[in-house]
Amino acid sequence: MSKTNRGNFFEDFSVGQVIRHATPRTVTVGDVSLYSALYGTRFAVQSADSFAQAIGYPRAPVDDLLVFHVVFGKTVPDISLNAVANLGYAGGRFLAPVYPGDTLTAVSEVIGLRENSNGQSGVVYVRSVGFNQDGTEVLDYVRWVMVRKADTSRPAPEPVVPKLPAALAPDALGGAVPLLDIEGWRNDLAGSDARFADYQVGERIDHVDGMTVEEAEHMIATRLYQNTAKVHFNQFTEGQGRFGRRLIYGGHVISIARALSFNGLANVFHVAAINGGRHVAPLFAGLTVHAWTEVLDAQPLPGREDVGALRLRTIATKDRLTGDFPAKVATETGEDYDPSVILDLDYWALIPR
Amino acid sequence: MSKTNRGNFFEDFSVGQVIRHATPRTVTVGDVSLYSALYGTRFAVQSADSFAQAIGYPRAPVDDLLVFHVVFGKTVPDISLNAVANLGYAGGRFLAPVYPGDTLTAVSEVIGLRENSNGQSGVVYVRSVGFNQDGTEVLDYVRWVMVRKADTSRPAPEPVVPKLPAALAPDALGGAVPLLDIEGWRNDLAGSDARFADYQVGERIDHVDGMTVEEAEHMIATRLYQNTAKVHFNQFTEGQGRFGRRLIYGGHVISIARALSFNGLANVFHVAAINGGRHVAPLFAGLTVHAWTEVLDAQPLPGREDVGALRLRTIATKDRLTGDFPAKVATETGEDYDPSVILDLDYWALIPR
Amino acid sequence: MSKTNRGNFFEDFSVGQVIRHATPRTVTVGDVSLYSALYGTRFAVQSADSFAQAIGYPRAPVDDLLVFHVVFGKTVPDISLNAVANLGYAGGRFLAPVYPGDTLTAVSEVIGLRENSNGQSGVVYVRSVGFNQDGTEVLDYVRWVMVRKADTSRPAPEPVVPKLPAALAPDALGGAVPLLDIEGWRNDLAGSDARFADYQVGERIDHVDGMTVEEAEHMIATRLYQNTAKVHFNQFTEGQGRFGRRLIYGGHVISIARALSFNGLANVFHVAAINGGRHVAPLFAGLTVHAWTEVLDAQPLPGREDVGALRLRTIATKDRLTGDFPAKVATETGEDYDPSVILDLDYWALIPR
Repeated sequence: MSKTNRGNFFEDFSVGQVIRHATPRTVTVGDVSLYSALYGTRFAVQSADSFAQAIGYPRAPVDDLLVFHVVFGKTVPDISLNAVANLGYAGGRFLAPVYPGDTLTAVSEVIGLRENSNGQSGVVYVRSVGFNQDGTEVLDYVRWVMVRKADTSRPAPEPVVPKLPAALAPDALGGAVPLLDIEGWRNDLAGSDARFADYQVGERIDHVDGMTVEEAEHMIATRLYQNTAKVHFNQFTEGQGRFGRRLIYGGHVISIARALSFNGLANVFHVAAINGGRHVAPLFAGLTVHAWTEVLDAQPLPGREDVGALRLRTIATKDRLTGDFPAKVATETGEDYDPSVILDLDYWALIPR
Repeated sequence: MSKTNRGNFFEDFSVGQVIRHATPRTVTVGDVSLYSALYGTRFAVQSADSFAQAIGYPRAPVDDLLVFHVVFGKTVPDISLNAVANLGYAGGRFLAPVYPGDTLTAVSEVIGLRENSNGQSGVVYVRSVGFNQDGTEVLDYVRWVMVRKADTSRPAPEPVVPKLPAALAPDALGGAVPLLDIEGWRNDLAGSDARFADYQVGERIDHVDGMTVEEAEHMIATRLYQNTAKVHFNQFTEGQGRFGRRLIYGGHVISIARALSFNGLANVFHVAAINGGRHVAPLFAGLTVHAWTEVLDAQPLPGREDVGALRLRTIATKDRLTGDFPAKVATETGEDYDPSVILDLDYWALIPR
Repeated sequence: MSKTNRGNFFEDFSVGQVIRHATPRTVTVGDVSLYSALYGTRFAVQSADSFAQAIGYPRAPVDDLLVFHVVFGKTVPDISLNAVANLGYAGGRFLAPVYPGDTLTAVSEVIGLRENSNGQSGVVYVRSVGFNQDGTEVLDYVRWVMVRKADTSRPAPEPVVPKLPAALAPDALGGAVPLLDIEGWRNDLAGSDARFADYQVGERIDHVDGMTVEEAEHMIATRLYQNTAKVHFNQFTEGQGRFGRRLIYGGHVISIARALSFNGLANVFHVAAINGGRHVAPLFAGLTVHAWTEVLDAQPLPGREDVGALRLRTIATKDRLTGDFPAKVATETGEDYDPSVILDLDYWALIPR
């Protein structure tokens, strides 16, 4: 029995395989403080018990993305330790609120496999589910990663590619938000007068502010999530690798972009679903992140008068201002992302009506 | 309606204007741990529930300067986002203790305005008040900042310059400290035998130790306080600016100096008032802070036998030892600060009698 | 009375002297979160209340090494502020569990003194004991440090060198672990199937992963422990010193090595004793730590069926992979450590049977 986990390779996965991940993690106010200090997030619901209680929460819930990162982190040692690339996310739903003191665990099911034509690697699709200590599902999402084969002589499995939704339907949203007493919502404390009806489909918002990332910060964050992917932590080996330096965890960029988006989306208090996300290019320490957002859709939630849902596309860049909304540019062969773009995220978020 | 906050400009302020700031913030033991880890503070009252309880607190109170920074941070998006310079503080009083779990909010009133003769900017005087979740005032202070005009064609307002006290009177001190059972104070655990009567007016104390500041540290601290001033976070834009690099939040220097002052002021457990403060010069990452303190005054508190007040002047330097107590130096035209000085802070602090 | 602590010199110590250290420290979930984020530790017992409760703890205990560092930190201002070198540890025992909310204090007794033949310095042996708020001993250990003399004309004291054990006996272990219900231990959640019987004496395990250390990280950690040793914090003075840069606290390396050892020792949940430890060479920021472990012994605990004890030797390196288990190498005059080795730690740890 080998005692060291060298991670799973492509041929170690099979469709239908269920993996219960180590290590359960109690999320505390200490984690909440660190999350605040790493990103400077200012959404009032997550920042203040008093604000959360005034609208019907028992106390301030844990930031949705902190929940996501903790659940994601658990999956890394089993799913993506030998990943060549994290290819995408889809169908991510926040299903129940998480409060300080709750303990999170994670289980993944392999829902698809497709070996690459080169026979060196393949794409693994997993649905990962995060649970709290009561066994309640708090989050699920699909991601797909390209994973190396260790033994390239092994035959390719029958390809199975799951059908994934382009976006969640509005009736799948809101499970993590109790029915709110919106009379208790104070715009002045939340930081904006703009409510659901004030956002227009097609509207684009530059979030103005920027955040430079230091090595210590992204490593502290990524360890907080117990994410063990080697590329984030080891300058000795990464210095000899493809980029010559440590790669920043893509989720760190998502959290920076979400925190920057407060300036323009202050009342957009809850990430309800991740429709899709792409880490377009890597981020390295010393570079500065800016972000802008386009409103893709706006929908009421079936049966709820308290909040509405905005489908948002947030794009983050490195070392480039976003006042002109950089995204894709025309190329000789079609179009591609502006070279400054590092993240293209499509998500549903909730805002008071 | 613009959804992005680009901050107020000089012409947006009027005397008597009251601004309720976003985002309320529940201060937790997580924030206390981060504050400890960022500054290495060792004052026993704030460090240990058992020590605090032995002298009559219900539990360890939150460090006074952490309260100050959180309240200050809330005012930044409304008051100083377009500030050219943070000119000074006066009349800062700590009015009630703050404990982990309390939620802080902040309100500011504009109490003075004076346009500069160049017509490009003006000085805004605000009194900011921090409240806890019960509406109790925990802190108030005046600060004045130089803010840019956006529309220089706007006429100058009638100048109003508030009369500010040079120092708080002793009877204004101590509101944040319950009547203490000083029999329970143990010098050995607190780290010094020097009590109120052992400090002499005019005495100068070199705090000996030094602390080098890293970019990650001051940004983590400043985000913890939800202070959004751009100059602290964005190397991409600051790299093209006046200093070519990020400026460190002046409050970070105050907290470093206070933590260093433990070595010489170990029993001086509570900052009761900020009489005045000046950020003489900016600090940048990679530089090392040292500090020294002069005792300006020593006064009993009216009606209290438990503690006395020391009026202290703490001076912090960058990359310079403080054994010779650097402050002002003679120049051809009078006197000016030694070029190493970055902070000149005048405050009242309490110590057991 | 000097108000500034310049630390004790060799001639200030006497055998039998008892020193009660400042500052008591309440350890909270905030400290636990920071510890997790600084090291990325993943041992399930300390990570999750639910896991700890399933085996009989009232809640997740505080990581043993966090307890060690907090107790150690208190001793620094009195014992090692003028230390030339931290020479070794022995006889360290974890005696009672520590939970968030407990307050730690520390007392040291001088148990040995031996002046060096050069008359410039001497070795001080202290036994330090950490207590919780109830006066229960939670930890004790012996360390010896070389301390400068301030007045070299003072005569050498009678040399007293304590007899120290090479290793703790198995019956001295386990005080910090309640009798566990091992039926509740789930290998899948803990991250490994390897239990006590699966480890063989002589077995060597490469922990594979590496961790690069940043200045901000080791300073945040060391301040969290309220350890005030100047060499860790002051680039201005250290830049002019022997190494030209800040030294990383040796305990930081121990915690990194312990966290890395999860990959191979996932079920080894508790450090029960530190038999001995040597900081073979200094670590500096920017370098990467790897580690490997040899099983030196495996013993049942007298009267307990729940857990067994492994005596482990963990060696950490800087900027060198550990797949070939670097330790000592032959030299012309005998043998010495491989130049990459920075830590050689001998400890007992507990694992479910």
